[in-house]
Amino acid sequence: MAITGDQRLLKRINRMALVRLVRSQPGLSRAELSTATGLTKSTVSLLVQELIDDGWLCEDTVLVTGAIGRRPTPLRLDGRRLVMIGAELSVGSVCVVSMSLNGEVLEREECTFPLQTSAEVVLAQMAGLIATQVGRQSDARRELLGIGVGVPGAVMETSGVLAVAPNLGWRDVPVRAMLLAALTRLGVVDLPLFVQNDGDVAALGEVEFASGPVGDPLLYICLGVGVGSGVVVGGRLLLGGRGFAGEVGHMQMQADGPRCSCGRSGCAEVFIGLQAMANTLGCSIAELETRVAAGDAAALSVLTAGGRHLGVLMHNLWAMLDPAVIVLGGPACRLGKPLLGIAQETFEALARAANLETPPVTESRFGDLSVAAGAAALVLHKLLQPI
Amino acid sequence: MAITGDQRLLKRINRMALVRLVRSQPGLSRAELSTATGLTKSTVSLLVQELIDDGWLCEDTVLVTGAIGRRPTPLRLDGRRLVMIGAELSVGSVCVVSMSLNGEVLEREECTFPLQTSAEVVLAQMAGLIATQVGRQSDARRELLGIGVGVPGAVMETSGVLAVAPNLGWRDVPVRAMLLAALTRLGVVDLPLFVQNDGDVAALGEVEFASGPVGDPLLYICLGVGVGSGVVVGGRLLLGGRGFAGEVGHMQMQADGPRCSCGRSGCAEVFIGLQAMANTLGCSIAELETRVAAGDAAALSVLTAGGRHLGVLMHNLWAMLDPAVIVLGGPACRLGKPLLGIAQETFEALARAANLETPPVTESRFGDLSVAAGAAALVLHKLLQPI
Ligand SMILES: [Zn+2]
Ligand SMILES: [Zn+2]
Repeated sequence: MAITGDQRLLKRINRMALVRLVRSQPGLSRAELSTATGLTKSTVSLLVQELIDDGWLCEDTVLVTGAIGRRPTPLRLDGRRLVMIGAELSVGSVCVVSMSLNGEVLEREECTFPLQTSAEVVLAQMAGLIATQVGRQSDARRELLGIGVGVPGAVMETSGVLAVAPNLGWRDVPVRAMLLAALTRLGVVDLPLFVQNDGDVAALGEVEFASGPVGDPLLYICLGVGVGSGVVVGGRLLLGGRGFAGEVGHMQMQADGPRCSCGRSGCAEVFIGLQAMANTLGCSIAELETRVAAGDAAALSVLTAGGRHLGVLMHNLWAMLDPAVIVLGGPACRLGKPLLGIAQETFEALARAANLETPPVTESRFGDLSVAAGAAALVLHKLLQPI
Repeated sequence: MAITGDQRLLKRINRMALVRLVRSQPGLSRAELSTATGLTKSTVSLLVQELIDDGWLCEDTVLVTGAIGRRPTPLRLDGRRLVMIGAELSVGSVCVVSMSLNGEVLEREECTFPLQTSAEVVLAQMAGLIATQVGRQSDARRELLGIGVGVPGAVMETSGVLAVAPNLGWRDVPVRAMLLAALTRLGVVDLPLFVQNDGDVAALGEVEFASGPVGDPLLYICLGVGVGSGVVVGGRLLLGGRGFAGEVGHMQMQADGPRCSCGRSGCAEVFIGLQAMANTLGCSIAELETRVAAGDAAALSVLTAGGRHLGVLMHNLWAMLDPAVIVLGGPACRLGKPLLGIAQETFEALARAANLETPPVTESRFGDLSVAAGAAALVLHKLLQPI
């Protein structure tokens, strides 16, 4: 009458549940884990010892206090041995990081590529950066759990095929297969490799590397040349029927608005996208940043308009999804208050008009690395998935 | 090492999995169920016999064909014995239905109430209608699985408290507790009672009463005085952090738009809501329907504007959620093509501009009863929930 006869599956589920529990409540003892899971104390002890041996958990130093009796040993994630590699593919650059279980960035490396470069060449470059980090982690006697990749477009989850990445001009690129082949040529074999949309992995980064409880649902909004999003609800990504969910940059905000790169008009991206804002000023993105920093009036006025639209977008996604927390990330966050401050004011004004309170809005702890770190979190997400 | 020692829980999970399988693929045989679930044939036979005895499944008549040998007996849901009661609380009326497992409406009854009526009185009226139907189902020797209630506002799932229903003017009403008390006074006891938002239950109605596979995610948009939505993804409702998800009627569509009943301006509801459209014409909702049927130019022009906004709303929700199917329901569907046709055209034009194809858009099979039928589906949803 059992679901499956597979005791190993049950063991894996229980092991992963213990890791998740210790992650969200660092300091839990074996006895508390037994209470929380319903597993016997001897089962918990056995599993915790395995998890310590495997590099997932470690015992915290027990503080000597005045209290009587032996304290139960607090457990926490072990950040020393297990690592994940995360790679971000963005428009014109590749960034690869090695991350500890605790969300510490151990290594980072970047390279750029001209926009017309073939997928083959770009992915070979990415494989090179990954292989370098694999070597370094091995030298440091760390153990690699796997590799995650975040890409700017919709991904078929099971096959790892990038269906369409408009800002790269890529269509139906088998990213996973090509990357595996390139890694094999470099002698990197037998590592789990996962590919997913950039907004989605960035959302996972906020959840899987959190050291404490996380708002559920968590809505991550990625602000760059493209504007995308990722939602984690009940520990799962909201991917949509074809993996195309989260294209919030192409929600229409103004019926007769300017034309968007996607072919539609009045999309959120034409007001909020980094390139679109730069285009409005007739300058480059770098120049936009310089002008904003210098307090240039025209640049600030474009950011004010962008911020207002971002505030309405945040409001509308909140009305639809009721996230418990909204996290903003991506390179446009560097523009700071002239964009994000106005957005927050607009959002709050809308909520206030309906006598409602906005949820907490934070910036990604990984800044510019939120997609790369999130790609590493994708590995953790897959490994800690109950089934 | 088992998750729990509870064999009964595993049995329940397996029973419910079999019901769901037969529902999505009517005609499956015991042997096919064994293959699909990994359960042994003898376990499947045992569970199927129990499910037949309990009124969930029945054997289809085996057609005598020219084929050689004995055919495996096809199984399907048994629509004869088990029933759920669903109740819709809407602005000014209550509607109660009894539904078979197959989604057949066995009974329906309605009553109206003046808008200022207290929650106490309204819920007592609802309890009266429910008690009548409980009696009738008992007379017909049908077995009641439970009662579901759909309400026009956000519900705290576990407590059954209606937090806020703006169009009713209700706040923090313990609907579940008050209804249980009223039912007890009428001698109706010991029945599971579930309360949930109207858009959410209507979405469940499309999933739980489907006789075949259903698009996942499924997005239901409820068109009435209020405009709301419900999303079912992976068999679960998307409720949001506080149960407030789906408030799509208050997504801002025009920054300087008309003022909405919620206090904000330019919400979807001021363009698409039935009352708002009637207000624009300075007439009642009934009059709006009459004028549309008579081809009145002013009325049709209001519907055209409403339809355009509905099309953009459908597009924007699709960009965010990538639903595999969109279902439209609620009383505004009665306005037909002048509203829904324009909406579909607008949606398709936006998708076409980006070289994308729209998902299937259908109308609820339950028409005006989509919330009441959906409330009955809520009972099924809870009982068939794996855990
Ligand atoms: Zn666009
Ligand atoms: Zn509103």
